[in-house]
Amino acid sequence: MKQIDHIGIAVNNMEASIARYEILLNTPCYKRETVESQGVETAFFKVGDSKIELLAATSPQSVIVSFIEKRGEGIHHIAFETDDLRKEAARMQNEGFRLLNEHPQPGADNKEILFLHPKDTGGVLVELCQTKPVQDPS
Amino acid sequence: MKQIDHIGIAVNNMEASIARYEILLNTPCYKRETVESQGVETAFFKVGDSKIELLAATSPQSVIVSFIEKRGEGIHHIAFETDDLRKEAARMQNEGFRLLNEHPQPGADNKEILFLHPKDTGGVLVELCQTKPVQDPS
Repeated sequence: MKQIDHIGIAVNNMEASIARYEILLNTPCYKRETVESQGVETAFFKVGDSKIELLAATSPQSVIVSFIEKRGEGIHHIAFETDDLRKEAARMQNEGFRLLNEHPQPGADNKEILFLHPKDTGGVLVELCQTKPVQDPS
Repeated sequence: MKQIDHIGIAVNNMEASIARYEILLNTPCYKRETVESQGVETAFFKVGDSKIELLAATSPQSVIVSFIEKRGEGIHHIAFETDDLRKEAARMQNEGFRLLNEHPQPGADNKEILFLHPKDTGGVLVELCQTKPVQDPS
C-alpha cells in the first residue's frame, strides 16, 4: 500500500459534521461530492498528504444507515492508495483475503475503489483505491 | 493538525495480527513497544508518511479489553501529529471540545499524547500527539 489516502467517517448530519471537522482539523472542507452508486454524500478535508472523508447517507438503503444503526457515528473505513488497484487486489486474493466487490467501483474523488472483507482484516473495513488517469480529450 | 500520524487498531492476538498486517500492508512491522501506563502493547507499520499501530491489552484493566468487549476488534483511534500539543489542546478546549486527559501522557513511539472526548468528535476517538524533542545529553 502506497499511503493512507483517507479515513472515512460515518455521520448523521453532514452540515453539522462539516462545521465540527472544520474546527477540529483547522482546515476548510475543500470538496463535496455525491456518489449515487454507493448511496453516500461525501465531504473532504486535507490533513498532510491524507484526507478525512465524511460520509452521510443519501437514501435509507445506504450502507451508512445500517452502519450507524449498528455502531453509531464513527470511523467507517480506511482507504489505502495503490499504484495498481487490480494488481493489489489480485495479490490480496492470492493471500486469502476476500473482496467485497468483484470489480472496481466508482468512488468519490476521481477514484476506482474495492473493499476487502472485514472478517479477513480483523474487523477493519479496508478500501483499496487508485486515482483514475486523466482522460486525454483528443 | 499537521498530518495523520497513525491509525490505532485494537486486536486480540498480537502475533496473528502482525502476521496478517504484514501481508495486508506488504511491509514488515518495524517496531514493537509496550506502554505500561496505557496498558497496551503496540506494533507499528509504515504506510507512506503515516503509520498503522496495532494495540493489544497487557492487562484485564486495559481500555483495549473493554473496547473489544463492546465493539469487537477494529479501528480504535486516529492520531494527528501537532507542532505544539499544548497549544493545539488549548485551541480545542476554547472551541468547546473536552479532553480525556488533563495533562499530556507518555505514548508509544516517543510521543506525548492527549485524547479528545469522542462525544465531541462524532464518535471518533481522536488522539493529538507530538514527537518529544531529542534530549541534549550534555
